[in-house]
Amino acid sequence: MSYAPTRPAPDAPPVRINLYSDTQTRPSAAMKAAMMAAEVGDEQHGDDPTVHALCDRMAALLGKEAAVFLPSGTMCNVVALNTHCRPGDEVVAHRSAHILSSEGGSHAAIAGVQILGLDGPRGMFTPDDLRGAIRSRTRYAPPQTLLEIEQTANTGGGAVWPLETLTELTGIAHAEGWSTHMDGARLMNACVAAGIPAAEMCAGFDSVWLDFTKGLGAPLGAVLVGSEEFIGRAWRWKQRLGGSMRQGGICAAACLYALDHNIDRLAEDHANAKALARGLRQIEGVAVEDPDTNLVYFDPTGAGMTSPALTAALAKQGIAVSILGGRIRACTHLDVSAPMIEEALAAIRTALKH
Amino acid sequence: MSYAPTRPAPDAPPVRINLYSDTQTRPSAAMKAAMMAAEVGDEQHGDDPTVHALCDRMAALLGKEAAVFLPSGTMCNVVALNTHCRPGDEVVAHRSAHILSSEGGSHAAIAGVQILGLDGPRGMFTPDDLRGAIRSRTRYAPPQTLLEIEQTANTGGGAVWPLETLTELTGIAHAEGWSTHMDGARLMNACVAAGIPAAEMCAGFDSVWLDFTKGLGAPLGAVLVGSEEFIGRAWRWKQRLGGSMRQGGICAAACLYALDHNIDRLAEDHANAKALARGLRQIEGVAVEDPDTNLVYFDPTGAGMTSPALTAALAKQGIAVSILGGRIRACTHLDVSAPMIEEALAAIRTALKH
Amino acid sequence: MSYAPTRPAPDAPPVRINLYSDTQTRPSAAMKAAMMAAEVGDEQHGDDPTVHALCDRMAALLGKEAAVFLPSGTMCNVVALNTHCRPGDEVVAHRSAHILSSEGGSHAAIAGVQILGLDGPRGMFTPDDLRGAIRSRTRYAPPQTLLEIEQTANTGGGAVWPLETLTELTGIAHAEGWSTHMDGARLMNACVAAGIPAAEMCAGFDSVWLDFTKGLGAPLGAVLVGSEEFIGRAWRWKQRLGGSMRQGGICAAACLYALDHNIDRLAEDHANAKALARGLRQIEGVAVEDPDTNLVYFDPTGAGMTSPALTAALAKQGIAVSILGGRIRACTHLDVSAPMIEEALAAIRTALKH
Amino acid sequence: MSYAPTRPAPDAPPVRINLYSDTQTRPSAAMKAAMMAAEVGDEQHGDDPTVHALCDRMAALLGKEAAVFLPSGTMCNVVALNTHCRPGDEVVAHRSAHILSSEGGSHAAIAGVQILGLDGPRGMFTPDDLRGAIRSRTRYAPPQTLLEIEQTANTGGGAVWPLETLTELTGIAHAEGWSTHMDGARLMNACVAAGIPAAEMCAGFDSVWLDFTKGLGAPLGAVLVGSEEFIGRAWRWKQRLGGSMRQGGICAAACLYALDHNIDRLAEDHANAKALARGLRQIEGVAVEDPDTNLVYFDPTGAGMTSPALTAALAKQGIAVSILGGRIRACTHLDVSAPMIEEALAAIRTALKH
Repeated sequence: MSYAPTRPAPDAPPVRINLYSDTQTRPSAAMKAAMMAAEVGDEQHGDDPTVHALCDRMAALLGKEAAVFLPSGTMCNVVALNTHCRPGDEVVAHRSAHILSSEGGSHAAIAGVQILGLDGPRGMFTPDDLRGAIRSRTRYAPPQTLLEIEQTANTGGGAVWPLETLTELTGIAHAEGWSTHMDGARLMNACVAAGIPAAEMCAGFDSVWLDFTKGLGAPLGAVLVGSEEFIGRAWRWKQRLGGSMRQGGICAAACLYALDHNIDRLAEDHANAKALARGLRQIEGVAVEDPDTNLVYFDPTGAGMTSPALTAALAKQGIAVSILGGRIRACTHLDVSAPMIEEALAAIRTALKH
Repeated sequence: MSYAPTRPAPDAPPVRINLYSDTQTRPSAAMKAAMMAAEVGDEQHGDDPTVHALCDRMAALLGKEAAVFLPSGTMCNVVALNTHCRPGDEVVAHRSAHILSSEGGSHAAIAGVQILGLDGPRGMFTPDDLRGAIRSRTRYAPPQTLLEIEQTANTGGGAVWPLETLTELTGIAHAEGWSTHMDGARLMNACVAAGIPAAEMCAGFDSVWLDFTKGLGAPLGAVLVGSEEFIGRAWRWKQRLGGSMRQGGICAAACLYALDHNIDRLAEDHANAKALARGLRQIEGVAVEDPDTNLVYFDPTGAGMTSPALTAALAKQGIAVSILGGRIRACTHLDVSAPMIEEALAAIRTALKH
Repeated sequence: MSYAPTRPAPDAPPVRINLYSDTQTRPSAAMKAAMMAAEVGDEQHGDDPTVHALCDRMAALLGKEAAVFLPSGTMCNVVALNTHCRPGDEVVAHRSAHILSSEGGSHAAIAGVQILGLDGPRGMFTPDDLRGAIRSRTRYAPPQTLLEIEQTANTGGGAVWPLETLTELTGIAHAEGWSTHMDGARLMNACVAAGIPAAEMCAGFDSVWLDFTKGLGAPLGAVLVGSEEFIGRAWRWKQRLGGSMRQGGICAAACLYALDHNIDRLAEDHANAKALARGLRQIEGVAVEDPDTNLVYFDPTGAGMTSPALTAALAKQGIAVSILGGRIRACTHLDVSAPMIEEALAAIRTALKH
Repeated sequence: MSYAPTRPAPDAPPVRINLYSDTQTRPSAAMKAAMMAAEVGDEQHGDDPTVHALCDRMAALLGKEAAVFLPSGTMCNVVALNTHCRPGDEVVAHRSAHILSSEGGSHAAIAGVQILGLDGPRGMFTPDDLRGAIRSRTRYAPPQTLLEIEQTANTGGGAVWPLETLTELTGIAHAEGWSTHMDGARLMNACVAAGIPAAEMCAGFDSVWLDFTKGLGAPLGAVLVGSEEFIGRAWRWKQRLGGSMRQGGICAAACLYALDHNIDRLAEDHANAKALARGLRQIEGVAVEDPDTNLVYFDPTGAGMTSPALTAALAKQGIAVSILGGRIRACTHLDVSAPMIEEALAAIRTALKH
């Protein structure tokens, strides 16, 4: 089979309200102007001042010593797992973690590690779950060396891990001699929702990354942070994976712009998500979770329509949503306004004949 | 830390009744005589007639085209996973499977595959569990390519997967285009207990292996079977892993001896295990599962003694048991007789002051 | 040690004439305007029209069925080796190939393949060399499955492999059942220098990639081409490596601009390189190779100055060159003009007191 | 293709004089008696006293702290490379090294390392060759971490690396911070030929292994030695690869027997090899190298017969030789006597009509 994405059908109705994913935001005119104005250099040669500025700023924001710029969040995970672990190691994560289910098995293929997936509601597990997963150290068991947490938990409904839970979990991991890694694809959503500074939220983690292509609205790029020593070794994997760019500053400039302009406004996305959930809850038969952040998962089956059927009905009206694990996921972001949420709700009510 | 096994303490009391594992059987005098009499050659050069005889016999016994002799059961799994899969693939198995928990992460380290561990009582899962674990084929999800079943399920209590379940499971896997692999470490225990010929028990599997160092009593060796084509490719991995031997016929002769003399008598081990379980059940507070085969798991905590404490108390009397997952495992085999079971029960009763 | 690049010293004289590498070109104002005007979408979701336009154009240019856009040339090699090969395979390449010496061992670390490095002058080997390197197919020898050629041969002095040699080499490889891969980092330099259309130059290769960040002047990106089937499988590795981008069209637009404006002008870079070599040859004691394309390697030792000493002397005057394998490499590109070559030559003569 | 070895043709003449390989020795009656008498236990559980005795003796013989018993020499290499290196590392060895050409690419497939093959006559390279192969430490070059030496150099004609060369080479490697590993498949041949104690010969190496299935005449097994710490980690790979055995003492007993009885007598094999070479040299047109140890490589082409033709002619008379790299290899060992050498020479003369 081909793994290439299919191109949009030529006669597909244009997407007017894009609740498919916050990865689909388009760079704004102001962001593009910042990109064009950026001073650039050969980033893999250490010569790009805009990349350096982004890395310095991210290290400070997340409270770590150093940072490295990478083309994607997936690469941040691949680099981090290869830098923390050796082949045969076991990483402990939630069973729904992106690294386990959505990166094509790259951690096993490239880092040679296995992931022990823990269960637990809303994409989260407890300190007791973690304690129960610790293996004895014998020549038979895979050596456990890394705890991985996804903040927010995507398929857990964009749930925010409480800081005290993170502190307890990372404490357990460190006591075992493991490292700790945070997949912060939507970390700033968690920080804004919880009202906790990013550096505090990441304090227990040896490495953390933030994606700029989701709610932050940049076209590409993610930044991985950690100790000087960790980032020094991470560079080798950036190089091996082909993640070293040339005049990367053009893209880094978009990320710097996002840090200046697109973080506080995530609160708006969360409000829109809550409004959407509220509206959905009023439709009889629709099962919907209350969102912590910008992801609304719901199941219209009880209202007489399957998820794929409703998705198709909405698509015809230019409203895009996605399906994950059988449920519909609607994602709010900077290209989605409050009136669009109202319009989407109206369209859903109509489709469900409510 | 060192992963080398610790040597026995010089003052450790000799083990008189070895319920620790059926891997600890000693080759009998008759088996050794067979080894000495074997005609041998350079097995990796194709010249060892005794190895050929063993492979031919095993292919016939398990109903497959071809077979390869390997130094251990773990290597059978490593060879099979590398031959069936490509890096990044996902293998579906029970969460308690030996490949997931007890081979040092080798499937990830060497084959680059991840293992999705399904839950389910007694080390087994249902066809519905398997259907629920099938991922959609996208560029995000790891490609699923192999179903792995452990017959009997060791940490599931030596449970025997029913043939009809195996047939349904392998049917689902094949319909998805996956291959199927049986870890038959204790396959003959399952066949004897279920009264089903081995070839029938393995019919749905593309590859199967049998360990000769457990209940069959040989000092080393396991045989992996499959199609001519599969075994032809498996040989490359035997070579790469260092599993090619020289005058391997000496060891293969012990396996041939075991096929002739040590299969039917497994029924005796099962009877001893049942007797042990029966005796344990009569001790108030001891939680014990009814064994399908030769493994008896029990928990003495309710009778006032922890598993490690009882294990230590028995060790002092020369009775060895093991601890897995917090419970005691007592394993019967050809070096354990019915009177020894009675003696072990008496010792347990005494220790528990019952 | 840290593998992070060192940042430029704050008091380093600004580089005025950059002969360090063609990777250091800066996107022009016109190229940036094209980037800003690009229509974009979520490229890993199949929604970016500019990425599609680039891929279609590249497939046509190189005469293959399909193409995939990747962040870097190194990633093109990693994707291609993983898609062509299985772990344990052997790739045959020149001993000086970029994949062997300059990608951090990624082919072994990620694809699990070994590279057999052939010798030969100017980074090239002959059909007889290739025939002599064919191993017999036994369970001992690593299976050979891929021929890799770097066009132009970078550390071979930017040498152009003659088309007839390529045809013979790929014929031998295909007759053996191997695949063929071209590292076309500077492929268009070869095509322009040889006056051969790219599709013809690549005809014998199953996969080829072109880097846009070298002489073509784009800030980031490379395109890998091959059959529909090959590219369909390559996407899985793009995803695994973290090479999937989001609004990648912004960067793809720069590549499209480069295809329109920066190919024919490579002839100018070649003329500048020849002029530089001519000038160097007139300095007694300087050993210099005649360049096929845009790379001039020379050794000033015979003129009384080591390569590092001369490099340092030039740096003080804002002239950057690099050192590879003990020799100085001067690289011409679109940010280097004919008068700059004259100025660089004058500076070299002065430094060498000639 | 199938990688399974082909079985001997039923009508193949029996091999009377086996110069094919010293791997084809058959265990003698006395060796088998020692095997049968061995006290055994579960070796992977630390309970086999005979395996312990062998390991202790080998550590002492080779002058290292600890040892581990493995089923084959190839596995010793795989374990050592995985224990010394990390994926992406580069190992420096001779281009003709067994790990590079004869282990199915396992070092790349399993350890993820690449091997830089140095040239040099008789399977050996010089300290200057090694110095010239040292790469600068950048994020581009693969990190070099291990020097590997094969003593004796098999395809180099069984050549013995002089101790002073080894001392200089390992000194260079250690100064670079690399580890050093000796593939001692035929180490005792080297020690006997050079009259140097094994511990002295291995002094510069961090890990060394000795194969018992070649000139030492045991049916299977090899022992890898190194520091306590190294062997402690090596055990993890023994487990992962499936190299842990059960009642391994039966095989270890053969190795202990070999240490007692089969080392000094290697001098006889060397004398036989020299006699064979002498005899061959008297045949006009036969090109033959003077053997350091027990391997005689010769090329009969100049005497009017190709290597395959002469090999076939000898096979008809029950005399087996092998072909490596186009030349015939005749290998002496404990199943080959001086009169057999005379008979083989006579047969060769007859075949060559000399």
